[in-house]
Amino acid sequence: MKSDTLYKIRHSLAHILAAAILEIDSKAKFGIGPVTENGFYYDFLLSKKIEEKDLPLIEEKMRKLIQQNIKFVRKKITLSQAKRLFKKLNQPFKSELLNDLQKYGTTDYEKILEIKEKKRKVKKIKYVTIYQSGNFIDLCRGGHIKKTSEIDPDSFKLIKIAGAYWRGDEKNKMLTRIYGISFENKEKLEEYLKYQEEIKKRDHRILGQELELFAIDENVGSGLILWLPKGAIIRQTIQEFIIDLYKKNNYQLVFTPHITKQKLFQISGHLDHYRENMYSPIDIESEKYYLKPMNCPFHLTIYKQSTKSYRDLPLRYAELGTVYRYERSGTLSGLTRVRGFTQDDGHIICNFEQLPEEIENCLNLVKSVLEKFEFKDFKVSLSIWDKTRKKEYLGTEKEWSFAIESLKRAIKKIRWDYTIMKGEAAFYGPKIDVIVKDAINREWQISTIQLDFNLPKKFNLNYIDQNNQQKTPYLIHRALLGSIERFIGLLIEHYEGNFPFWLAPIQIVILPINANHLSYSLEIFSRLKEKYRIKIFEPNESLSKRILLAEKEKIPYMLIIGDKEMKESKISVRQHRVGDLGLIDLNQFISRLS
Amino acid sequence: MKSDTLYKIRHSLAHILAAAILEIDSKAKFGIGPVTENGFYYDFLLSKKIEEKDLPLIEEKMRKLIQQNIKFVRKKITLSQAKRLFKKLNQPFKSELLNDLQKYGTTDYEKILEIKEKKRKVKKIKYVTIYQSGNFIDLCRGGHIKKTSEIDPDSFKLIKIAGAYWRGDEKNKMLTRIYGISFENKEKLEEYLKYQEEIKKRDHRILGQELELFAIDENVGSGLILWLPKGAIIRQTIQEFIIDLYKKNNYQLVFTPHITKQKLFQISGHLDHYRENMYSPIDIESEKYYLKPMNCPFHLTIYKQSTKSYRDLPLRYAELGTVYRYERSGTLSGLTRVRGFTQDDGHIICNFEQLPEEIENCLNLVKSVLEKFEFKDFKVSLSIWDKTRKKEYLGTEKEWSFAIESLKRAIKKIRWDYTIMKGEAAFYGPKIDVIVKDAINREWQISTIQLDFNLPKKFNLNYIDQNNQQKTPYLIHRALLGSIERFIGLLIEHYEGNFPFWLAPIQIVILPINANHLSYSLEIFSRLKEKYRIKIFEPNESLSKRILLAEKEKIPYMLIIGDKEMKESKISVRQHRVGDLGLIDLNQFISRLS
Repeated sequence: MKSDTLYKIRHSLAHILAAAILEIDSKAKFGIGPVTENGFYYDFLLSKKIEEKDLPLIEEKMRKLIQQNIKFVRKKITLSQAKRLFKKLNQPFKSELLNDLQKYGTTDYEKILEIKEKKRKVKKIKYVTIYQSGNFIDLCRGGHIKKTSEIDPDSFKLIKIAGAYWRGDEKNKMLTRIYGISFENKEKLEEYLKYQEEIKKRDHRILGQELELFAIDENVGSGLILWLPKGAIIRQTIQEFIIDLYKKNNYQLVFTPHITKQKLFQISGHLDHYRENMYSPIDIESEKYYLKPMNCPFHLTIYKQSTKSYRDLPLRYAELGTVYRYERSGTLSGLTRVRGFTQDDGHIICNFEQLPEEIENCLNLVKSVLEKFEFKDFKVSLSIWDKTRKKEYLGTEKEWSFAIESLKRAIKKIRWDYTIMKGEAAFYGPKIDVIVKDAINREWQISTIQLDFNLPKKFNLNYIDQNNQQKTPYLIHRALLGSIERFIGLLIEHYEGNFPFWLAPIQIVILPINANHLSYSLEIFSRLKEKYRIKIFEPNESLSKRILLAEKEKIPYMLIIGDKEMKESKISVRQHRVGDLGLIDLNQFISRLS
Repeated sequence: MKSDTLYKIRHSLAHILAAAILEIDSKAKFGIGPVTENGFYYDFLLSKKIEEKDLPLIEEKMRKLIQQNIKFVRKKITLSQAKRLFKKLNQPFKSELLNDLQKYGTTDYEKILEIKEKKRKVKKIKYVTIYQSGNFIDLCRGGHIKKTSEIDPDSFKLIKIAGAYWRGDEKNKMLTRIYGISFENKEKLEEYLKYQEEIKKRDHRILGQELELFAIDENVGSGLILWLPKGAIIRQTIQEFIIDLYKKNNYQLVFTPHITKQKLFQISGHLDHYRENMYSPIDIESEKYYLKPMNCPFHLTIYKQSTKSYRDLPLRYAELGTVYRYERSGTLSGLTRVRGFTQDDGHIICNFEQLPEEIENCLNLVKSVLEKFEFKDFKVSLSIWDKTRKKEYLGTEKEWSFAIESLKRAIKKIRWDYTIMKGEAAFYGPKIDVIVKDAINREWQISTIQLDFNLPKKFNLNYIDQNNQQKTPYLIHRALLGSIERFIGLLIEHYEGNFPFWLAPIQIVILPINANHLSYSLEIFSRLKEKYRIKIFEPNESLSKRILLAEKEKIPYMLIIGDKEMKESKISVRQHRVGDLGLIDLNQFISRLS
C-alpha cells in the first residue's frame, strides 16, 4: 500500500467517525478532523456526553458505515455557496473557517495571527471543496478514498478521548477530541497495539515508581529527581563504573560548584546565547550568581590555574557535573526530561595534531560504555558545516576540513553507519551524535562528541609549544551517557526494569521456608553479604507470596531454603526470568555469579 | 606570672611603642593602643612613612627605653585639665576622645552610636587618668607596670604594620597600626613564633595552591571551590571510603537535588528560622525555588514516598549532599569557610527503643572514620537542655532524659572525655559534638550527632507499629566528616600536605636517570599503574631537579632507575620524609605497599 493511500484512508476514517457521531448526536458541531502520525482525530462539540467506554460502540457504527460502501463525493462550490450550506447545516465552526478563508485566504490559525499582526497581503479564495459521505458533509481539501470498501474494517481502532480547545486557543470553547489509529490491515494494527503495550509496560515513570527507584515530589518541584535508595544504587553503580573508566583512560576527575558569578557565563557567552535555558539569578552581596547549565566554563577555568606546556597535553578533565536547565513544566517527563541532571561531562584540551587520536579514543570509550549496557546497534550522525556559508562559522577552512576528516576516519575505523548532516554543525565546530537502538528497536541519541573552536579563544586558553611559542589549544566536549538521569530512564525501559546482575538494586534474596530455616539462611547471608547486595525475606508471609514479591521486585536470584537444603548444605536457586536452577552448592552458585 | 601581670606588660609595651615612635616622628598623632590576644598594637597618624623593614629599628628604640627603667606615672586630673593638656600636646585624636567622654561618658564608638541613636542617658565624667612614661603622655585608664625593669626586653617583638581607620570607621582618616606580640619571657616568645611558623607552613590555603589541590577563582566567586585534579583525587578517595563505610553499616545512599520549591523549606521551618543563611530565591514559572542549605528535608521527603512499618526501622539514609549557605565575603577562608560545601550527611529514622543503639553505632562510626585519618585524641561536648526552662523545648521530659542518658552511655562506652553543656542544646533535641586534636594539638570540632524531636512532626512522618498503630519515629542527624571541604582543609594542615599513601594524589613517581632507562621505567610503570597512582618524570631535566620536584610535590615514593637497577632488575626506592630504602626487588616493594 502506498503511504498516500494510507493517508487517504486515515483522512476518510476521520469523516466516517464524524458521520458515526452524527448518528449518535444529531446536534453535534464539527471542528476539524486531520490525519496524525498513526491515524486521525476529530474534534466535536457534543450535546450529549461521550466517554472512553462508548468508543467500541462508535467503532461499531463506523464499521457499519464502512460496510455500506459509502462513496466520498467531492464538489467544488463557491465560497458563498459553502457559507450558505454550513449555515443551513448549523455548523458554526465550519462557518468560522469559511469566514477566515474569505478574510485571510487560509484556515491556519498561526498564519492568520501572523497576517493580522504583520498585516500581510491576503490571497483571494473563490472556490472551496466539500466532501459528502453518507449524511455527513465536510468542508475539506481532500484527498479521500473513492468508497469505503477500500478500507479494511478491522484495520482501525478508536483509542482515546481528550479535551481540546477549538483551534488550540484556551480562550475558545473546549471540544471533545476522539483519537483513532489506522493501518494497512488488521495485522499491522495488532502489531502496533502490541508494540504500544510493550512501550507502556516499559514506561520508566511507572516502573520507577513500582520498583521504588526515584520520586518526584510536589513540595520539591517538577523535574527535580529524588533518588530513592534502590535507584541510588543503580546511579552509584553506574557512577563508579564511569569513574573507574575515567581513571583507566587517563581522565582527571574534577569537582566544580553549582553556582557561579555571572562573569563566568559572560566570558563563555552563555548569558548572551543560552540565557533562555538558564534560571533567574541569585543575588549575593549585590552580585548576580547563576545555577550552571553547563560545566565547560568551570573546566576551562581549572585549565587556567597554571601555565601549561605542550608536554601537559592532551589534558582530559571529567566531572559528574550536575547542571540545571530551564524546561517548561509542560514538557517535563520522568527522568528523560528534567530540570536538574548530572552529565558525565568530559573536556579534552589538546593540540591540533592530537585531535584525530582523541576523537578515536572518545568513540572507543563510547562503544565500550554502551556495550556494557547491552546496546548493540550503533549509528552516528555527523554534523558538519555548510561551506557555502563560511562566514557564519568560527575556525579556518583547514581546521574544519581536518576536524571533519578526523571525525569521519574515527567513525569508519569503528565501522558504524553514519549520516552526514550538512549545515547542522554549531558555528563553533563539527560534532558526532551517537544513536543506539534499545531492546524494542527504539532509537535514542546518547553520546556526543563536539569540537569547539570558540571557547578556548573566549577563555584565552594557551600552552607553550616546543618552540616556546604561546598557542591556543583545541577543545573537545564529550559526554558518554549524556545525562545520567535520562540514561537511567532509558535503561529502565531498555531492560524493562529487569536490571542485569551488576546493576540490580537487590541482587539476591534468601527465602527461608519457615522459621526453622532462618539460622541457615543467615549463615548463607553472611557468606554473601560482603560481595553482593542481598536481602532475606523473613517467613512472616507465605513462601508463594514472598516469591511473588521477589518477582515483582525483579530480583535476579532467589535462594529458597528448606529442610532439604539445610540437610544437604545446599541452596535451591531460582533465577528471575529463567526459572529453577535446582539444588546446588553455595560455592557453585558463587562461581556462577563471577 | 599572673595573667594580670602579662596584661599590664603588654599594655605598657603599647605605650613604650608610642614613646619610641615619638622619638622617630615628633609630629606623630596618637590614636589608641590596646592589648590583644598575644600582644598589643598602637595606631598612629605619622608625618613620615614607616614600613615593615623599620620595625627592628623601632624595637631597638623600645629596648633602649626599657633599659632606661622608665617609670609609669599615673595622674588623676579633671576632664578640662586633660582637654587643655592634649590640646597643648597637639593630639587631636586624644582631644576627640576627651570630647566624647564629656558628651557621652564613654570613648567606646559603638556605645556612642547607640547613645546617639537611642538617646540614652549619659553618665557624667569629671576626672580622667593620664599615664606618663618618659616623654610620652597618654590618656589611659591603666593598668600598667610600675617601671620598665619589669619587662624582659627580649620577650616582645613587633610583627606587622597595617592600615586601620580611626575608630574603625572608613569615613575617618586611615592610621598606621603597628602590631606587637609579647610573652612572659624570651622562651615563650620563641615558642609562640615557632608555633606560628608551624601554622603558617601548614596553612591549607598556601599548601593547597602549591600542591595544586584546589582553586578559588574570581570569575566563579569567593567561597566556591574548584577542585583541581590532584585535590579531586583526595576528595574522591575520601568519598569512596565514606560510601564504602555507608554500605558496610547498612546506610542507604540517596541523591537529592540542589534546589527546591520554597514549600519544602516552609514545611521544615528553615524559611522561618534559617533564612539569613539561605540565598535569595530563583524564580521558575512564578514560583520561588531555593538553593538547599541542608539535606534533611529531602531525606524526610524520601521517607514519605511509601508507607513504613516497624519492620523497616531503623532506616539510615546517607548522602554526600552539597549545600549552599550564606557567609559574608569577609569571613570566607580557603576550604574551611566557604559558601558551598558537601556534607557526608546521614539521617537515621528509628523508634524510641532503637535510639541508644543507633547513637552508639554513630559514635563507633565516628571513631573508625577519624582514626583512619590518624586523629587520636578525641573529646566530646554534650549539649543538653536546661530543665528549668522546659517550656522552651520540644519533646517530653521522658524523651529528653532518655535521649541524654543514651548519649551519655554511648560516650562512656567509647571512653572519651566529655563536657556537658547545660542549656546549649537546640530546642528540638540534645547533641554530641566530637572534637579532635590535630598533629600540632589544635582542636577542631568535626563530627556531630544531633537528636531531633521536631522535624518528624513537622513532616508528619510515621510508621505502623506492631499493634497496627500509627506512630511518629525519631530522627538523628549525623555527620562524620562534617563538610568534606573543611575536613580536607583540616587534613592538609594536619598532614602538612604529606598525605598518607592511600590519599596521596600521586603515590609513586619513577625517575629514569637518563633516556636509556626509559623503557625499563615504562615496564615498571605498567606493572604498577593498575593499582597505584603513578607517574614518570621523564629525563628532560637533571635527576636532582626532578628529585626536588618530587619532594616538593610530597610524593610518598620515588623509584630511581639507572644502569644498576636495570642490570639487577631492581629498583632504588626513596621514601618521602624517610629517605633511601636502597635497591630492592619490585615485588618486595609491592608487598611493602600492601
